[in-house]
Amino acid sequence: MSSVAGPAPAGAPLPLALTMGEPAGIGGELTLKAWLARGTGLPTFFAIDEPDRLAALAAQLGMVVPIARIDKPAQALRLFQAALPVFPQPLSAPVQTGVPDHANANAVLSSIDRAVEFCRMGSAGGIVTNPIHKRTLYESGFLHAGHTEYLAHLAGAGTQSVMLLVSPELRVVPVTVHVSLRQAVERLTTANIVACGRVVAAAMRIDFMIAQPRIAVAGLNPHAGESGALGHEDDKVVAPAIRELRQLGINAFGPLSADTMFHAAARAKYDVALCMYHDQALIPIKTIDFWGGVNVTIGLPFVRTSPDHGTALDIAGTGAADAGSLIASIRFASEIAERRRVAAGASSSAAQ
Amino acid sequence: MSSVAGPAPAGAPLPLALTMGEPAGIGGELTLKAWLARGTGLPTFFAIDEPDRLAALAAQLGMVVPIARIDKPAQALRLFQAALPVFPQPLSAPVQTGVPDHANANAVLSSIDRAVEFCRMGSAGGIVTNPIHKRTLYESGFLHAGHTEYLAHLAGAGTQSVMLLVSPELRVVPVTVHVSLRQAVERLTTANIVACGRVVAAAMRIDFMIAQPRIAVAGLNPHAGESGALGHEDDKVVAPAIRELRQLGINAFGPLSADTMFHAAARAKYDVALCMYHDQALIPIKTIDFWGGVNVTIGLPFVRTSPDHGTALDIAGTGAADAGSLIASIRFASEIAERRRVAAGASSSAAQ
Repeated sequence: MSSVAGPAPAGAPLPLALTMGEPAGIGGELTLKAWLARGTGLPTFFAIDEPDRLAALAAQLGMVVPIARIDKPAQALRLFQAALPVFPQPLSAPVQTGVPDHANANAVLSSIDRAVEFCRMGSAGGIVTNPIHKRTLYESGFLHAGHTEYLAHLAGAGTQSVMLLVSPELRVVPVTVHVSLRQAVERLTTANIVACGRVVAAAMRIDFMIAQPRIAVAGLNPHAGESGALGHEDDKVVAPAIRELRQLGINAFGPLSADTMFHAAARAKYDVALCMYHDQALIPIKTIDFWGGVNVTIGLPFVRTSPDHGTALDIAGTGAADAGSLIASIRFASEIAERRRVAAGASSSAAQ
Repeated sequence: MSSVAGPAPAGAPLPLALTMGEPAGIGGELTLKAWLARGTGLPTFFAIDEPDRLAALAAQLGMVVPIARIDKPAQALRLFQAALPVFPQPLSAPVQTGVPDHANANAVLSSIDRAVEFCRMGSAGGIVTNPIHKRTLYESGFLHAGHTEYLAHLAGAGTQSVMLLVSPELRVVPVTVHVSLRQAVERLTTANIVACGRVVAAAMRIDFMIAQPRIAVAGLNPHAGESGALGHEDDKVVAPAIRELRQLGINAFGPLSADTMFHAAARAKYDVALCMYHDQALIPIKTIDFWGGVNVTIGLPFVRTSPDHGTALDIAGTGAADAGSLIASIRFASEIAERRRVAAGASSSAAQ
């Protein structure tokens, strides 16, 4: 594996790598449905998955999806319109729909590892991940909280990955993510709000082409602490972070009362909301748009998006899963890859 | 003051008592606007406020609102169509729009005290409160977290008051309310979730006429703790409360992942969401419906509703405030008063 992130070559966009996710969940079905939607101008992608199980799943669901095994991502470009390109990722145990098997945890992770490797080699334009089943991975010895943290680990020391959720109406970032609410309160520091805000500001500029992003910062406590009556963290932890971000030339403001910052008129006043914990960010975006949201990991040296829902084990194998969020994730990955390519081209021209 | 809550007499509905709220905020303007909307079939109400300041505010905003001083609530019934009935509540200092004055804190509280007294005497059908400015009251020695807690105090020992927020699309209840997020985590107990759930179930049956209310209980932690990986409170505190409520014959279920329980399809599966802390309840309802929400205090021996927004000091005096939530609160108080009257009549008939 190359130890340096390879630059994207000029010319045609690279195919996107789509990971397997938990094979007992809805990931396979979403992959098949996304390929069936290719006529809507979807960018080329290839799955890193087990080809026979995808073929069997297509047959079971009555979908006509020819599977083409590939051994290099570039092959996807010419094959994609005729068949779903699949880079084989062997499984260790047969898939039982709805019941994750610890025996396949390594395959789930290996699919992610390969996607990262393809990006680093410059043969994939970005990664789109299907949902993983965290508990099964944890029980199998996985030491990372989720995709976001695992990808930062793969990207190497010093990488600050940040989860950004995007829907047509709202963008949100949780500063703390997959920890208990108690830990979210305890671990919130001025330094991690600032670090997160810097990654967000950079991503807004490059990945979203917003020259002067407006970052609304939510308070931790009800009513942003009501001047200290409902907790001191907003005055002592959040407000100093906002001041520091502003000193860095970033248009951050707040802390705002979290309950009154997500209705339509309030959303019009900012480009992204920086939230202090998981549910503060995810409740508003999933309330507004449950199936259309996209999770973008910013701060990584490669592009990564994913649907913002889980494995939906309860409906896996029934054909009921909505591929809207995965399809939006594929489009989004392609757009961001293109913007980064343009930005990299502009900066390398400027350097000449 | 009568020490016993007086039963509502049969016949015409009683007028509702509308409190002053913070006089430097938008309350006065909302009161005037609500009276101007009386032609839409609004139930009769009277304000407990300073008559001259309301007359001056109406003149300043170019509103034609005759003010009728009353000394008994019953006078409101015949006056209401021709003039805004106002039971005088003297102020200690002139009102400066947008700038709360500690000198008027006692008047703000006295307006609430009188409204409760009128309900107890059986001369008002319920209380609708304008927003108060908590910090000003706290700084003036007010020892209660807000209206909800103060009204429970006035109602007497053993009263469990609960904040229920209602909009056309969603009903939510926060188990912990005006405390810091850290305290919300620390103070959450199985006993207070059960106590809150019981009050909610009773209110759904009587005040909302839902015979078998479905109560969705939110988890405290992200993903309701992900089987303990993201905190143990959901397994050790919330789940036992749900079991206890079910043993009491209450259809409570969960703990649910809070981020996925508030979109339209999920909301259709329950009548009310029991949330573990302030923002978990208020973010979804205010995101969906910012101006139409009504705050209903359940568990009290009298009816109390209020708009779910604050004093909006920044727009006070400009005429820009939206009276939609106050008007909805007035209608709602009247409906609940009528339902309680019917329920009390049914139970007293049954007892005969």
